[in-house]
Order: sequence, then structure tokens, then C-alpha cells
Amino acid sequence: MLPSSIDYWPLGGGESEYIEYNTTHRIVPGKINVHLVPHSHDDVGWLKTVDQYYVGANNSIRGACVQNVLDSVISALLEDKNRKFIYVEIAFFQRWWRQQSKALKAKVKELVNSGQLEFINGGMSMHDEATPHYVDLIDQTTLGHQFIKNEFGQIPRVGWQIDPFGHSAVQAYLLGAELGFDSLFFARIDYQDRAKRLKEKTLEVVWQGSRSLSWSSQIFTGIFPRHYDPPDGFTFEINDASPPIQDDILLFDYNVQERVNDFVAAALAQANVTRTNHIMWCMGTDFRYQYANSWFRQMDKFIHYVNQAARQLEFFIGRNASGPNTDALADALAIVQHHDAVSGTEREHVAADYALRISIGYQECPLLNISYCPPSEAVLSDGKSLVVVAYNPLGWKREEVIRIPVSTDRVTVRDSSGRKVEAQLLPITNATLSIRNYYARAYLGKSPSETIKYWLAFSVSVPPIGFSSYIISTVKQTGPSSTISSIYTLEESADDTIEVGKGSLKLIFSAREGKLTHYANRKNLVTASVEQSYSYYTGSDGTDEDPQVASGAYIFRPNETFPIKSESQITRVFKEKDHAEVEFTIGPIPVDDDIGKEIATQITTAMKTNGTFYTDSNGRDFIKRLRDFRTDWELQVNQPIAGNYYPINLGIYVQDTSSELSVLVDRSVGGSSLNDGQIELMLHRRLLHDDKKGVGEVLNETVCLHDKCEGLTIQGKFYFRIDPLGEGAKWRRTTGQEIYSPLLLAFTEQDGNEWINSHVSTFSGIDPSYTLPNNVAVITLQELENGIVLLRLAHLYETGEDKDYSVLASVELKRLFPKKINKVREMSLSANQEKAEMEKRRLVWEVEGSGERSEVVRGGPVDPQTLVVELGPMEIRTFLIDFAFLRLFGS
Amino acid sequence: MLPSSIDYWPLGGGESEYIEYNTTHRIVPGKINVHLVPHSHDDVGWLKTVDQYYVGANNSIRGACVQNVLDSVISALLEDKNRKFIYVEIAFFQRWWRQQSKALKAKVKELVNSGQLEFINGGMSMHDEATPHYVDLIDQTTLGHQFIKNEFGQIPRVGWQIDPFGHSAVQAYLLGAELGFDSLFFARIDYQDRAKRLKEKTLEVVWQGSRSLSWSSQIFTGIFPRHYDPPDGFTFEINDASPPIQDDILLFDYNVQERVNDFVAAALAQANVTRTNHIMWCMGTDFRYQYANSWFRQMDKFIHYVNQAARQLEFFIGRNASGPNTDALADALAIVQHHDAVSGTEREHVAADYALRISIGYQECPLLNISYCPPSEAVLSDGKSLVVVAYNPLGWKREEVIRIPVSTDRVTVRDSSGRKVEAQLLPITNATLSIRNYYARAYLGKSPSETIKYWLAFSVSVPPIGFSSYIISTVKQTGPSSTISSIYTLEESADDTIEVGKGSLKLIFSAREGKLTHYANRKNLVTASVEQSYSYYTGSDGTDEDPQVASGAYIFRPNETFPIKSESQITRVFKEKDHAEVEFTIGPIPVDDDIGKEIATQITTAMKTNGTFYTDSNGRDFIKRLRDFRTDWELQVNQPIAGNYYPINLGIYVQDTSSELSVLVDRSVGGSSLNDGQIELMLHRRLLHDDKKGVGEVLNETVCLHDKCEGLTIQGKFYFRIDPLGEGAKWRRTTGQEIYSPLLLAFTEQDGNEWINSHVSTFSGIDPSYTLPNNVAVITLQELENGIVLLRLAHLYETGEDKDYSVLASVELKRLFPKKINKVREMSLSANQEKAEMEKRRLVWEVEGSGERSEVVRGGPVDPQTLVVELGPMEIRTFLIDFAFLRLFGS
Repeated sequence: MLPSSIDYWPLGGGESEYIEYNTTHRIVPGKINVHLVPHSHDDVGWLKTVDQYYVGANNSIRGACVQNVLDSVISALLEDKNRKFIYVEIAFFQRWWRQQSKALKAKVKELVNSGQLEFINGGMSMHDEATPHYVDLIDQTTLGHQFIKNEFGQIPRVGWQIDPFGHSAVQAYLLGAELGFDSLFFARIDYQDRAKRLKEKTLEVVWQGSRSLSWSSQIFTGIFPRHYDPPDGFTFEINDASPPIQDDILLFDYNVQERVNDFVAAALAQANVTRTNHIMWCMGTDFRYQYANSWFRQMDKFIHYVNQAARQLEFFIGRNASGPNTDALADALAIVQHHDAVSGTEREHVAADYALRISIGYQECPLLNISYCPPSEAVLSDGKSLVVVAYNPLGWKREEVIRIPVSTDRVTVRDSSGRKVEAQLLPITNATLSIRNYYARAYLGKSPSETIKYWLAFSVSVPPIGFSSYIISTVKQTGPSSTISSIYTLEESADDTIEVGKGSLKLIFSAREGKLTHYANRKNLVTASVEQSYSYYTGSDGTDEDPQVASGAYIFRPNETFPIKSESQITRVFKEKDHAEVEFTIGPIPVDDDIGKEIATQITTAMKTNGTFYTDSNGRDFIKRLRDFRTDWELQVNQPIAGNYYPINLGIYVQDTSSELSVLVDRSVGGSSLNDGQIELMLHRRLLHDDKKGVGEVLNETVCLHDKCEGLTIQGKFYFRIDPLGEGAKWRRTTGQEIYSPLLLAFTEQDGNEWINSHVSTFSGIDPSYTLPNNVAVITLQELENGIVLLRLAHLYETGEDKDYSVLASVELKRLFPKKINKVREMSLSANQEKAEMEKRRLVWEVEGSGERSEVVRGGPVDPQTLVVELGPMEIRTFLIDFAFLRLFGS
Repeated sequence: MLPSSIDYWPLGGGESEYIEYNTTHRIVPGKINVHLVPHSHDDVGWLKTVDQYYVGANNSIRGACVQNVLDSVISALLEDKNRKFIYVEIAFFQRWWRQQSKALKAKVKELVNSGQLEFINGGMSMHDEATPHYVDLIDQTTLGHQFIKNEFGQIPRVGWQIDPFGHSAVQAYLLGAELGFDSLFFARIDYQDRAKRLKEKTLEVVWQGSRSLSWSSQIFTGIFPRHYDPPDGFTFEINDASPPIQDDILLFDYNVQERVNDFVAAALAQANVTRTNHIMWCMGTDFRYQYANSWFRQMDKFIHYVNQAARQLEFFIGRNASGPNTDALADALAIVQHHDAVSGTEREHVAADYALRISIGYQECPLLNISYCPPSEAVLSDGKSLVVVAYNPLGWKREEVIRIPVSTDRVTVRDSSGRKVEAQLLPITNATLSIRNYYARAYLGKSPSETIKYWLAFSVSVPPIGFSSYIISTVKQTGPSSTISSIYTLEESADDTIEVGKGSLKLIFSAREGKLTHYANRKNLVTASVEQSYSYYTGSDGTDEDPQVASGAYIFRPNETFPIKSESQITRVFKEKDHAEVEFTIGPIPVDDDIGKEIATQITTAMKTNGTFYTDSNGRDFIKRLRDFRTDWELQVNQPIAGNYYPINLGIYVQDTSSELSVLVDRSVGGSSLNDGQIELMLHRRLLHDDKKGVGEVLNETVCLHDKCEGLTIQGKFYFRIDPLGEGAKWRRTTGQEIYSPLLLAFTEQDGNEWINSHVSTFSGIDPSYTLPNNVAVITLQELENGIVLLRLAHLYETGEDKDYSVLASVELKRLFPKKINKVREMSLSANQEKAEMEKRRLVWEVEGSGERSEVVRGGPVDPQTLVVELGPMEIRTFLIDFAFLRLFGS
């Protein structure tokens, strides 16, 4: 098995990444010392009443709940003894205090005694200074101070009048010095005064507020350089936009150095306007710390990282050593299954993130689909041989044509035993070269070599769950070493009728009409008139009266349909395959007319399909669809097109009394049968209005190079085939599984014959003399980290779907695995419990109106001696297999 | 002392109000059982990438941090074992788990084992159902389930596909039943289908998703009646607008019954569309529980209160018994000192709350200022006698005229020894009656009797820190029993010159010009030309280019000034007082022209004041102001009017070489001297634009009756006087203190002479033979709850302010308090530490450029034998006095 499936669960049992942050307090002489002052400025009534602020009522006016502040601050302080907080408004604190349990009160008293929680200012409110009478100031301060004294035995030492709109002399000398305060801090000051003080570094003064008492009632006064909030970029309330420190090296966007640099820059800026090396940052502002942890978590990190530069280096080294690697592919694929991802309703930058995650796991030839494959190009241009390893994850042998881009026509292909393999050179169209050139630069930042001319196509044969190797070499001869094939372009043809196909299937095109006209398969005797066309829908811009909105990420709401004369597509017919492969290239969709467009293709026959079609459910069951009809309720048809669209993951088919037309897709698309005999697929969408369902972004994907952007071009494939009625399922199931699990290619170079001689060049995971029944697929085969192998077998057919294959199937595990099997346990689908246990726990429902239970075909228990697994139609069975030989390597 | 100052600290040492909520789980058959399901739907990538969502980066796109969710949920679960939470997306949980300490991991494992934390669905993501291939669904689910199994040994039992945009058959039977799930829940469904199911109560179904496996792979499926969020009004994320349960009976807005009713109504509504009595509420939605406590706190309360109806009754009883009472006055006043309150930048509904808080402490005659006093009116109309108790909080004896409204002219006033007191009957103007009628109905909801005709004015004499009682009786005689005084109205006068004043001060008015013209005091030989006028400023609407904004709550930004011809005002001169009292009534300010206006008054003399004026700092020091000048920086004058306005709490004065003009105010106003010889006060403002500094509301106060609103009318007083140069301070200090501390009136009724004979009818807190020096005031005298008395003495004069009084003053505590003093401790200003201790701790600052220290006069230490307290100019000293007799009542 390939290494990529080993260590599948690196995170599950992985080592702890817990970081203990060092946040101990210390002063370093001669350096700038930044003192973080965590605080919440809780107005005792402003936009809401004092009680509304306390309990968090009337939040439509302002989201603020002081109870949250105090609850969460106390909790955060109790978690880490290095954390500190100041609290100011006793009117709020007293409300909170009254509601606490004795046990919590005792803990809070310890926080106050240890200095973690300090009362500052300490009046009931942070009184105004312009308008109250001094006796009222004294009274309200006394009330608060008495509470602090009575409950905590503490005496506030700092005046903290950060928000009042101006400052009175009485505040400084009477409500400051005479309270025993050492210092007074505030933020608001005349803008002209502040400008002068910033310039002259006189933000810190000793204030003598009284002519009569002069120096005997003076107080150190600190004016904040700006407001009483943190420097820009250091606010960490829930929902604040400052970048958090991301120091988990296993996540993306690690930014410790960047944030440390930001911190240092902000500290230097402040040190430039203050007199000493000690500067204060007010870490908080109005009604902040509603969830205190959001602040303390970040401050912990800043203290930790700013104090220890060496450690940062370790981290950077660590990141390189243990950063994202290919083992993360499984995780990436799991994340991408999220419903906002596969459905396309994620934002574009999130889509880019998904793509990045996937690319990390599959780096070899990221843009092979558009003919860009650096390893193959580099090796061959140096005159060396290229080894191509083709891996087949399916449980049956496959013969397929693979293609790689080459720059020369002088290449030969040999299999691992040295036999020459027939190969073809297919000219690469200018359209493809143009995409290759643009997209490689846009997405990889690399200019691809200009010399690629051909697709080298050759047939490979790969054993089940195994791989084969092929060697591609340049030859020193004049003229091409392989057949150069033609591409028929309808415009260039001399005849009106063009017949394509060297095997039993022929497609007939009309050059004059520029389209497919007939389909004929001499093997199953199907002939039919078939047309394939393209059209586009204009997307609704949502400006009309209807409660529905614009066509967008969530909504398909077409206005009108227009035919498209031609699209860039290549139709291929392979000798051994009785289906047509259509490779389409669509884009950029023009939107110069400010109208969004959605591109669809139609395959049209004369079949009388009676409004009925079938679409797959997650690539598994096919569900019958009736146009303009729902089983569960009487449908009111408001959207005759969109209301009949269904998701297509595997395929879609229609049938009449004699034949069935099937289409398979290489990706999830929308599809329908809007007219009898016709199948339609939606292939590409470019829209100019947000549909207001939440993504808040227009579905207008662009690709940019040097700040110039153009609409996204996409390339993909679908496949179609016509079978006699009742015979289409075989193709849909087998080919569908192959499309979902294409051969995986890996590349390496070799000098001479070294590689091929020193490596296993062909291998199958199963007994070469055994083959799985045609109606069964191995859908999972993975070695878990404990050496146990996870096997999932799936019956591919539904009851009644195929006369030969919709029957009980048997798999012989002893032949599937030539190694000695020690033990087999049947598990639930996700392998987290034994199946028998699961069945025991299953709730039995009495279902109203369900009548008698029909017969269900399921496989029986697995005999531990014979180890034969039976599977009924659509059954999937999951096993953990313990191989005896693996034990030898254990203790 | 009056009872209102006893129990001053009811909250400080009050009993605990901690409520232990009963949230134990129970099922009650036959009732509706509401199952709260706390959850957070955490999209694994949508508007942000998965890592950005996890660490809370890129919050400008969407405030969401899953780390917060998990941190705070775990913390909340650990706090209370009855709390539960489900978690779904293992991609996030795994990131979080990796970063936790071993200790916390152990605790979380316990939470999972006990069922407090349950993994639901349990794939890496909540996969889409429309577009992925079934093998990918199995793989991503397996990855998550393996993690849960490996780390916690747990097996998810519930499918939870609440957000995907549609649902596939494969999900139901394969990713549901075959995983061993008992049930599957989701929210999204075609709107037509949902409507039918709501109607037919078929939201709950047993789904057989597979034709082939039919009943052997069925699953119970619950479709939510609406979305996956809680019923309206039950969302409790930080900043959510749902009303929290307010169950603290000491706060306002207690709403337990109301919220319980809401809960029951929402439960009934849901029970109407579900099949059984068991209904589920999804308590959460996208990225919620960023601070889990905000949810659990409310859910705890709902569980507690909805389950125990009897307890609610207790609470309502409790509220009546221990609800807000008059003891809360001190708290209310403290809260009102908050800088957004006194400065007027609070919102109007907050101002109403402040007013309510204050009114609770002072209920007797809330609208006495506009002649509405129900106790006096009721008693006298019944023919009984009314006892008026006048309390003097100052340390000196006061002789003042008090006024109460009466409906008859046949009343007499006697003092407590039965001596008749001279009284006057002053006609109540129609303007006052109109305000009285409107405001009593608007603010109290009461229609006042229509019979009030006069102010009964009489002189009272009240001892220092004490009270006197007066008895008002109706007499059975014809014709008035007291002198009915005239009110001069300038329009009615026959002569041009009107002289007002029966004492030494005379004011001369010109009836022709309609204004004051001269001021003459024969006692201090001051005569002067004086005019008093009104004007209004038009407020800037902020639409010009200037960075400054509209005139509003924070900003005074006048455009133009216009004179006002007449205002409703009464000017009074009392025989014993050498000052003029101006009572003004202003409003509603007309704004029909859509222009906000600000009303000011000017007192204008010919004094040459050289751009200089003096304003008080918090009613204490007077600060010298120079027009268009700042001491600390070179002022650039951008706002020639607003830039020269200062807060006036006590008063403002100007002086020239021979005299000084002083104005005292009864409330905080803005004031200035914009022209030499002139003093200006801003009295009322009504503006139509928000100044965008935060309050988000227009300063346009209105008073509404039956949904009809008119602009606020205000009534107030200011006082002015002219003294020879150097002699104004005495008046400003003494009268200023009296204005700040007016006599407090309380009322009771008596039949015959009962009350006066059975009560102490006159009392002084100090030795009647002792009087405080004229330059000292008792600013605080309060009995603390431990029986200790808090005393504050304030020297009222600044150094050099008055030739007689700006000297060291002495207070003999033994004579001030006739009781035996056990111990006197001098304290810091807020009495939370001994003064000597405070001085020891005081930091000593070396002040740059401060030169030699000038002499400061302060009182020396208090000799414990003589107990004489000395006070230097502006000194305030605070003492705790322990009286011997109080000890006798102790243990």
C-alpha cells in the first residue's frame, strides 16, 4: 500500500501541543518596560441604565453586561496567578458581590489580597469632574471606599478618571492626594494641550491642584497619549478584529514573529512621547472583558513571546520540521466535506484555503489537468528517463489511457518488464497552452517552459489495489517515435459527416451544423439521434418584487435562456471504452453587459421519458425524480427550472421503453431533465449579485496575474452512453467508481535502469489469482496506526437495478489478502464499535402505517473459519482485520 | 439626626443574595417537557477559513472564535454538573484538544463520561448532503469517530445535520442508521414541505432512506419547526438582545414571572406542531457560546423558575418586603455622580432612571418646586393641622423663608412653642399652575387638586445640624389671616420705575424698558447700573465642512446669538438677605423652525474686568479664567463662545478695581464672561441633532401626556450680588453652602396638639451654646452601622480669599458634641485608613523646576485631651468618632 495511507490518525493520538506560557512579572532596567493594565470601563449608566448594564438587558441599544465582565474576569484570574485586573466602579462590583456564593467570595478575597484583583479609584462610579459639588464627590467615593475596606480591608491607591470630559483642580488635590492616592490617570484633555504635551514629553506631571495647600496636596498625574484603549491592533474582545497570536505550528497563519514585531513597534511609538522607559498600556475600554479569557489568552502570549526571543527561533525551526505535510491529506479532505465547502457557498478566500489544504497532500503534478507537470518536463528535457507509477485504489484490474505533457515527439514508453508500450502523441491545443501558461503563473508563481507540445498518451494496466510502473525515455532518432494523432476540429473538416471512434462505439458529427448528430454502438446495437448543445441562463439580479433574491452562491434563479453557438470542448472515444468522454473548457464567462451568466450543456435525444429522470444520492443510490412533482406534498411550481434541478455527484439518467441515456460526471454539478429525452448539466456560473443568504460575497471567481484579473476558466469532463433498457447500471456503477477513484500518478527519475531494478515495480495488494465480484468494491483499505487494517466492502447495486448483479455477493477475505489473518471484527460504518454491539443498542421503532416488513437481503455473519463476507444489494460492511504477521513486529 | 442617614451602608455588609439554582434533570409525564439542547454550530470554513474560525482571526469578516466556545463551554460545564452541551465538529475539537494541558484533558474526559459533554454527529465536519460522494462522507465521519473513540471511548448516537441545504437518502440510511445512530435531526427543508408538516404534525418521522435495505436501515428523524436557533427572545450570546431573567430583587426591572410566561408561551407554541409532549429547543446557533456562561446563566434560571411555581410567589412577596426603599438614597446619589449623569450626556431614558432612584429616597414632596405637595394639600383641606419639620444639615443656625402651596387664605403658622409666626401669602402665577397641572400628571400620573392659590411663605429658624417644627392650621375667620403680598409685573406698573426690596438692598426696574436697571445696597454702599437679559444661540446642525459636529449632548457649538424680549422670571429680594434671587421658568423652547436653541441669561455691568473671571472647581476652589487664553499652551481660538465656557457648580464672579459681581447657581450650568463686566449662564438647551460623540440620541427632552409631547420646561434659581472689592467671598461661601444644602422639609399631620406634645419638636445636634467658626462647615456627619460617627469639617476659604476668614480656624469637638467622646481617629478623606498611615505611605515626588516650597497652613494633630481641630484654608479633615454612650448599647 502507498505510504500516504499510513499514520492516518496523526492527530487522534498525537503528542500534546499544550504550551505553558511564562507570564511572570519582571522589570528589566535600561529596556522599555511595557505594563499591561487590563481594565474595563463600565459606565454606571449611559446609553442604558445601571441595572440594564449590569444584567445585560436592553442589549439592542448596546451589547454590555457587567455581570459577564466580573464573572469571566474572576474566572480568568483564578486560572493563572500571574494575571491581573483592575476594577473601578464599585456600584457594579457591589451588585455582583451580593450575588456570589460564600465559597467564591473567599476566592475573590484571596485575589484581592494577592494583588491580582486591584480596586482603583474605588468610588461607586467614576464621577464627573465638571459639574458635581465636592461634597457629593467625597460622599460617593467614601461609599465605595468603605465597601472595599469593609469587605476586603483594602485601600485604593490610584486615581483613575479616564473618561470624564475634563478635569478639575479639586479632583487632583482633594479626591486624589487627600484620599492617599499616589497617582491619577486620565485620557481626555484639550486636543491642543495634548499635542503640545506629546511634543514636549510632558504627559506625566506632578499636579498641585490647590493654591492654598500647594505642594502638600500634590499628585503624580499621567495623561494617556491617546485614549484609554490599547494601541491599534491589540484589542481582544470577542469579535474584535485584532489579529490574535497564532502560535500553534500545526495550524495555518502562524504569526508569532509578526505580532511580536507589532508589539515592539507600538511600544517604541509610545516610548517616544513618554519620559521614562516605563510605559502603560490600557488593555481594555468601555464594557470590555465580557469574556475575559479572550483578552488574557492573548496577553499571556504577548508576555511569553516578547520576553523570550530565543524561544521564538525554536518555534520557527519547529515549524519547518513538523509543519504541514502530506499526512494531512485525510484531514484536509474531511474538512472539505463541510457543507459550505462542497456546495460552493463558502467565500472565495476560503475556497482558496481548501485548495491549499488539498494540494499539500498531493503535490506531484498539481496542474496536470492543464498539461503542467514539472517533474515529467524536467526529467525528459535532461535526457533522463522518467518513471511513472500508476496506483489503482480499486479492487479490480484496470486498463486505462493516461496522459502526460511532453516537449518532444522522440519518446518511447516501456513497461516495467521492458516491453514497449504503444503510445500516441496528441497535439496540445492553443487554448490549453494558454490556460497552462496563465494558471501556472497565477497559482504557482512559476512560468512554465514554453516547449510543451504534446500529450503523451499510453495505455496502462494496473492490478487491483496495486500499482504498475512505466518508463518513458527520449530516443535519439529523427522523426516521431510514437503515432501523432489528429484532433478533428469541426471547422477544418472537408466532409460534412465526421465519424469518430475506432472501437465499437461511433459518434457521428455534422461539420456543417457544427455538432454531434448520431450515436451508434455496434456491440449492444444501440443507435440513436443525439445532439449536444450549450446554453446560458441570465442570472436574476434580485431587484424585482419577488421575495426570492438574486442568483448567487446559494440560489439558482435564472431569468432567460440563450443558446451558445460553440464551446471549447474535446470529445474523445477510446477503443476499449463504449462511452463518449467530453472534456469542456469554459471561461472566462463574459460579463461586460453587467449580467451574470450560468453555463449549461444539454444532451438531447428523441426518447419519450415522461418527465421522469434519476439522479444519484451521494454517488450511491439513484433516486427517481418527476418533473414538477414532489412525493411528500402538492408542489406549487414557482421556479420551473431551478425547482427541477438536483445535485449530481455520480450521474443522471433517463429511460424510455427501449433504452436509457446515462451521464456520469467528474465533479458535483447541478442537473436536471427539463424536457423529455434530454439531460442538462450546469457546468459553470459567474454572477454579479450576492443572494443575501449569508456569504456576503458575489459568486464572481477571478484569476489574477499582476493585479489584472479575469473570470475563472474551468476544465472538466463528463461521460455519456446509451444502453438498452435495463443494461445501463453496469456502466454507471463500474465506470462511476473509476471516475471517482482515478489512477493516481507519481513520478520519479532514473539514470539507466537503476530505479526499475532496485524497486518493486508492480504490486497488487490482493492475491493475483483472485478477483472481486463485479458487484463489489473495496471502498476503504487503510492501515491504522496500531497496525490494524480497516476494510470496507460495498455492494454497488441496488435491489432490482441489474438482473445479474443485484444479488447477494461473496468476498473471500483469505484470497483477498494473501497474508495470514489473525482476527476479523465486523464494525459499525465508522468503525468505532463492533457491529453486534451497535445492533444490540439500536432502538426499535414502531412505525405508524408501515405495514408488513418486506424481505431485505443482507449478508450473514462472517464465519471465522472461512472468512467469507456476503453483501446484499447496497450493503456496506466494515471490518478491522488483525494480520498475524504484524504481531511479529510487536512485543 | 434624621433616620435617612442611618444604615448608610446597607449593601456593604448586607446578607448574601446568592441563589443556588435547582437545575436537576427530571421528566414529568403528562406535562410538556422542554429539553434544552445547548449547542454551537461551528462551520468548518465558510466566511473565514477553518483556522481563522478556530483562533478568532479575521474577525472583521465575522466575529467568531471556536477556541472561545470550547474554552468557555468546558469552564461552564465544570462549574455545574447539571449543565450539558453537545459538540459536533471534531475538526475544531481536535485543534482545541491538542492545546490543552493533561490536567484539563482529564477533567474533560470526566465531562464526557458523565454525559455533560456529548459528541453528536461526530464527523470532522457537518458534511454537506447534496454534493459529496458517499465514500468521502464515510471517510470524514470515520476520522472524527475514531478520534472520539480513541480519546474518550465514546460512540456518537445522534445525527445532527442541522445546516446542510438539503438532505440525501444516503445520509439517512448510511451515515445514520449504519453508524448506529438512533436519530437524525435537521432544520432545512423545502418551505412548502415544512408548511405541510407543521400543519399535519409530521415533523417527526421514521425515515427509510434505502429501497434496498428499507426498514433494516431506518432512522427516527426530527425536523425542527423552524431554524436551529432558540425561540425568539431566548438567545443569550453576549450582546444578544433577549431580555435576561432579572431575579435580583434589589435591582430594578425584576422580570421572573414575565420571562417564565414567555417561556411557557413559546413551549406551548411548539407543542402545537409536534406529536408528543417532549419538545426540543436548540439553545444556540452559528458560532455561539463564545462566552458560554452568558447562556448557561440564563438557562439555569429558566430551569429553576419554570420548575418551581411556588418559589416564584415567594419572590414576589420578597420583592415587596425588601424592595427598593429610602435607604437607597445614598446609593442613588453615588450613581448619579457618574460622569455621564451629571454632565447630561446620558440618554434620556437613563436620566429618567436616575430621577427615579433619587425620588425613591425623597418622596415627601417631589414636585414642591412647582407648587405640588400632596401631604400639605390633603391635610389642610381636611381642616387638620400640618406639622412641617425643617432640617438644617449645616453647622450654623439658619433663618430662612420657606414656601408651601396652600388652597386657602385662612391659615396661620405657629412655632413649636405656640408663638404665631409672621407669614405671607404669595399668589401662584398662572404659569406655575399650568406647569404644576401638566407635570404632576405627566410624571406622577396624578391630577392635582385645582384649588391651590397661594404660596404660604414664612420665616423659619433652625439650629445647626438640627430641626425645628412649625404648625400650620386653618382658622375659622373671614378674610385672609396673613398678609397677601403683591407680585410686581412690569407690564402692569403705572410708574416707569419700580423699586423692589424692603431691606438694605433695592433693585430698580424700568417698566418702560421692561428690565432691571439699577442695584443699590445702602449697607455696603454699593450702587451700580445693572441689566439682566436673555438670549438664545442657534445650535449648529453639524452639516458644514468643519470636523466639529452639531451642538448636542457633548458639544456646545453655537452658530448665532439672538436676544429674547421677555422670559418668565420672578426676581425676589428678601428683607434679611442682601442678594437678589431670580427664579426662572424656561420652556418649551420652540423648534418649529427646525433649529435647536440654547437659552442663556446675562447680567451686565459697566465694570472693567479685563477679560478675567473666576469659576468654581466642584464648588470648592475658585479658578481664575482669562478669556481666549490658556496657561499651559498657546490657544488657537476656534470656538470664541464655547471655548470660553466653564462649568459652574457654585458660582462665578468678576471684579474690577472697586467692586465684584458674584452669581451663585442652584444647579450645575455652563457659564462665562464673554464681555467685560458681564456674566453669562446657560440655562436650558433643546437641540435637534446628535453630536455623534456616542450617546446616539438628540438632546431634545420632552414631557408627554396622553402620547402628546412638548419640550421640557425647567424652573430654577440663581442669585447675584455686588460687593466692594475683596468682600464678596463671605457671601459666596456662606450662601453657596446654604444653596447646596437647603433646608429639608418633612410633613406630617396632627389632630389638636398631639404631635407637638409627644415629639421632640426642635433639636440641635451640637451644644446650643456653641457655634462653629464662620469659615468652617460640617460637610459630613453620619452614624455608620457600627455606631461610629463619621465627621468631616471643611475650611471654606482659600488662602488670601478673605482678610478675616482665610486664617487657621479651630473647632472644639467637645462643644460640638455634648456627648462624651471616647475616641477620635483622624482618617483619610474617604475614611478608609488612618491619616497617619496614609501619610507614611505617601510617595514623595521630586518635582522638576518646583523651586522652594512655599508655606502651607494646615491644622496640627488633634490633642486627645482638648480635642480641638484646627483647619487651614481649604483644608478638609475627616474623623471617626467613637462616643462613649454608644458603647453602653454594645456587648
